[in-house]
Amino acid sequence: MAVSQPPRQSAGIRLSELVGRLGGERVGADDPLLSGIGSLERAQPGALTFLAHARYRTHLAATRASAVIVGGGDRDATALPRVVVANPYAWYARAAQLLHPAPPVEPGVAASACVEPGAQIDPSAHVGPGAFVAAGARVAARASVGPHCRLFAGAQLGEDSVLVAGVTVYAGCCIGARALVHAGAVIGADGFGFAPDRGAWVKIPHLGRVLIGDDVEIGANTTIDRGTPDDTVIGDGVKLDNLIQVGHSVQIGAHTVIAGCVGIAGSARIGAGCRIGGAAGILGHLQIADGVEVSPFTLVTRSIAEPGKLTGYMPAQPHERWLHNAAHVRHLARMADRINELEARLAAVERAAGAGDEPLPPGPAKGTN
Amino acid sequence: MAVSQPPRQSAGIRLSELVGRLGGERVGADDPLLSGIGSLERAQPGALTFLAHARYRTHLAATRASAVIVGGGDRDATALPRVVVANPYAWYARAAQLLHPAPPVEPGVAASACVEPGAQIDPSAHVGPGAFVAAGARVAARASVGPHCRLFAGAQLGEDSVLVAGVTVYAGCCIGARALVHAGAVIGADGFGFAPDRGAWVKIPHLGRVLIGDDVEIGANTTIDRGTPDDTVIGDGVKLDNLIQVGHSVQIGAHTVIAGCVGIAGSARIGAGCRIGGAAGILGHLQIADGVEVSPFTLVTRSIAEPGKLTGYMPAQPHERWLHNAAHVRHLARMADRINELEARLAAVERAAGAGDEPLPPGPAKGTN
Amino acid sequence: MAVSQPPRQSAGIRLSELVGRLGGERVGADDPLLSGIGSLERAQPGALTFLAHARYRTHLAATRASAVIVGGGDRDATALPRVVVANPYAWYARAAQLLHPAPPVEPGVAASACVEPGAQIDPSAHVGPGAFVAAGARVAARASVGPHCRLFAGAQLGEDSVLVAGVTVYAGCCIGARALVHAGAVIGADGFGFAPDRGAWVKIPHLGRVLIGDDVEIGANTTIDRGTPDDTVIGDGVKLDNLIQVGHSVQIGAHTVIAGCVGIAGSARIGAGCRIGGAAGILGHLQIADGVEVSPFTLVTRSIAEPGKLTGYMPAQPHERWLHNAAHVRHLARMADRINELEARLAAVERAAGAGDEPLPPGPAKGTN
Repeated sequence: MAVSQPPRQSAGIRLSELVGRLGGERVGADDPLLSGIGSLERAQPGALTFLAHARYRTHLAATRASAVIVGGGDRDATALPRVVVANPYAWYARAAQLLHPAPPVEPGVAASACVEPGAQIDPSAHVGPGAFVAAGARVAARASVGPHCRLFAGAQLGEDSVLVAGVTVYAGCCIGARALVHAGAVIGADGFGFAPDRGAWVKIPHLGRVLIGDDVEIGANTTIDRGTPDDTVIGDGVKLDNLIQVGHSVQIGAHTVIAGCVGIAGSARIGAGCRIGGAAGILGHLQIADGVEVSPFTLVTRSIAEPGKLTGYMPAQPHERWLHNAAHVRHLARMADRINELEARLAAVERAAGAGDEPLPPGPAKGTN
Repeated sequence: MAVSQPPRQSAGIRLSELVGRLGGERVGADDPLLSGIGSLERAQPGALTFLAHARYRTHLAATRASAVIVGGGDRDATALPRVVVANPYAWYARAAQLLHPAPPVEPGVAASACVEPGAQIDPSAHVGPGAFVAAGARVAARASVGPHCRLFAGAQLGEDSVLVAGVTVYAGCCIGARALVHAGAVIGADGFGFAPDRGAWVKIPHLGRVLIGDDVEIGANTTIDRGTPDDTVIGDGVKLDNLIQVGHSVQIGAHTVIAGCVGIAGSARIGAGCRIGGAAGILGHLQIADGVEVSPFTLVTRSIAEPGKLTGYMPAQPHERWLHNAAHVRHLARMADRINELEARLAAVERAAGAGDEPLPPGPAKGTN
Repeated sequence: MAVSQPPRQSAGIRLSELVGRLGGERVGADDPLLSGIGSLERAQPGALTFLAHARYRTHLAATRASAVIVGGGDRDATALPRVVVANPYAWYARAAQLLHPAPPVEPGVAASACVEPGAQIDPSAHVGPGAFVAAGARVAARASVGPHCRLFAGAQLGEDSVLVAGVTVYAGCCIGARALVHAGAVIGADGFGFAPDRGAWVKIPHLGRVLIGDDVEIGANTTIDRGTPDDTVIGDGVKLDNLIQVGHSVQIGAHTVIAGCVGIAGSARIGAGCRIGGAAGILGHLQIADGVEVSPFTLVTRSIAEPGKLTGYMPAQPHERWLHNAAHVRHLARMADRINELEARLAAVERAAGAGDEPLPPGPAKGTN
């Protein structure tokens, strides 16, 4: 989307045309000409908006949008021209793509680009100012290599894929079709592997590649290391946010989404359809099943065999209270021992009381409790 | 400061001249010629140093510096030539800027830069080697676009602002005056927004911009995403350290400072004058009041309505003790239940004892406790 | 290793030649010609593999590799041609480097590079497409400045060192010999230092440098800030993974290894031979002794005077259980108070019981416990 030019404002699309292209049921007599999108609260006349959740229904009456996308249960929640669909948010996303299409890729190689002999650039592809494409690298049809991107020897970029700017694709690494790789991402740097030897470290050569499937988005300054000895593999439809670190030989299953600042250590295998929250971590060599959700700031230290949501961060508090409470975290084991001891001693007292004085007398204390 | 050339050593400035320009009261007969700065312990003759805290007073006697900046309470703590000011550290910072001025911006466009027709470059601005400025982008007076920076269509860089090297400013994003953006920062990549649809993800077009105020500093490889549908807004005087992730449509109030490795999720609104510690996190759609302080490694999961300091990290311990204690974190609820139970049982025992044996006799055990 | 070309497959090296060059004892009559490396499970015929740990012995029988490296205790664990060495993994690393040598550096400056007059480039060094080397910068023998790297005034790159691509070295910063700096790393940006002054922040000029020793590896998009007023110093043999933030005036001792996403605040001094786990943090001005190990996700808040392993992360759990338990973290101090109170009350009850009924009678309850 956000490439070298701003998304274009469309000349306008009739609601009926959107419905014709995307499906759904159009309700209402008017067929407004739509020129953009907006939230319920801020949309301007001419805009398409959507109601994704019942809690926003109160904003519906006041919206200035010209049409609204609703779910089946909200069919009659407004008198505005509307589309009734099963998934309003996804329909909104697709309609937004039609209303604000990405600028087309301009075929050709910029004069300032450096394309080595032996690089294969499809005639329909774009290579931007200052970009570097090494011998043996391949850029497929309609792909776009933005300014100052570099594809080293044998790197491949698939059809309709975009490297926005300053992206590095190391030797032999492959990106599939329709990828969007944001500025500064680094694909295929060496993983962090060294053999300890008498107080120093001997580098393990990293001979595996990074293989990235189709329809993948990779955020700004995210890094994905090459494997050793096996390849690092990112499945189809995976979405990675900014500043994520993916270690060597990691595997990420299809359609898994990972939020910003996550770190994934080497050789972890993450299933398909997982959702990893921001700044989470996954230790090396773990296996995470399909459909696992990891909360933000949570470190996964063991393999997860079943879908489900995993959480492990320290709750925040006002600093003084945290100081008070956190001190005891360091003594939880002792605290548990004391509870054990209390239980044993109390049981002894109870037995003793029971022995000498059984049953417990209904005394005056009872009423005071 | 640290741009393409090292800060210049000044030919020397008299202490009296610094006082003339920055204010403060000069004490002592000598008026040394100062050529640089330094810490109390390492300053060389000719250097200006400062005493910001009483705990460093012991270093004052031994310093080799030629002049020292002190607060009112330390007026007589040294016989060195000195300046008495309300805020020694801020005065030191300003004096250091005068003693080591940043090199002036060299007007002109490097031969290897790629400036598209329709880009507006002020004649006093600098565009460095290999930089790319797209049609419709604007570079204001005395601004500097370092090597391999890219400003896409409609991007704007304000007066006296510096992009050091390899900085990306996506289409339509605006940076105010006197900004300093360090190498590798990415301004305006798409936010992380996808609508789930039958096991896959539909991209939400990101149509908002990033708007950055005046006097902002942005650290190396920090990423600030564009908004959807609203803009991402960074207030005047905000300071962002390295490797920070700012999500789509986030708002950060004036003069807030954020340390390295922090992640801020989409649509969070952070007030003015906040201080966010390193590697902290703020979840999406939260509102943080002005003047809030967040400790390092702390995840903020709720809106904060009042100033104050929030903390939430797990205390570190020797590994074996941590293993011991951390195991109990997983059973705190059970531990709390057991305490509840103990209290109830003990109360029952006390009632029983009280019923049969009231008041508690002053027995021999008392003396042994 | 992974630079502009893929590691080269060697024409083949006899096992006896590897032993001749690297030491070790060759066992078995055959002297296979080896052309590559592989894991026990995936190695192909012609490959060299290794057995680093007894738990992988089960894979040894089935391996298709042509030779295997073993420790002394596994000398007879296979009939394959083998090398017996003290440290199989380190020997494997060195053999892999011989079997897959990095491509040689091609001397010369690319036509599209921008080398200012006054830059010193050794004739045997390589300066790649679009790279920028400022006046006063120095590139030593056989060093390689990859595409779009920039060395500002006075920066130095040592012999045989490699900047892969898009690396920034700020003015005056020095990198030693045999360094490998991955794409997007930023060496020498200003540290995060500002003096508060009436609600705003005054920048502290950063005049120190970054000094990096020999044999250092720096990961992709890692940032190392320059110091103020003292230099930031990275010792010989240090290995830094991707996306690490090293603050101003930090010192890191020789052969310390730091995993991805770690943040180190200003003026921390880390000893030699330390191991810092992924996404750990170290607060400013701390001193960490030699040989300290820090677990992943652990924040170090105090100086560490002795070797040892430090840990402090919150254990992860299924989300519902975490909710249950984490709530009590906020009330640990109260929980501790209640245990204190229980102990006091129980002691009183025990004393009372002891006073009235001493010794405790051996009652029927005893047998039920």
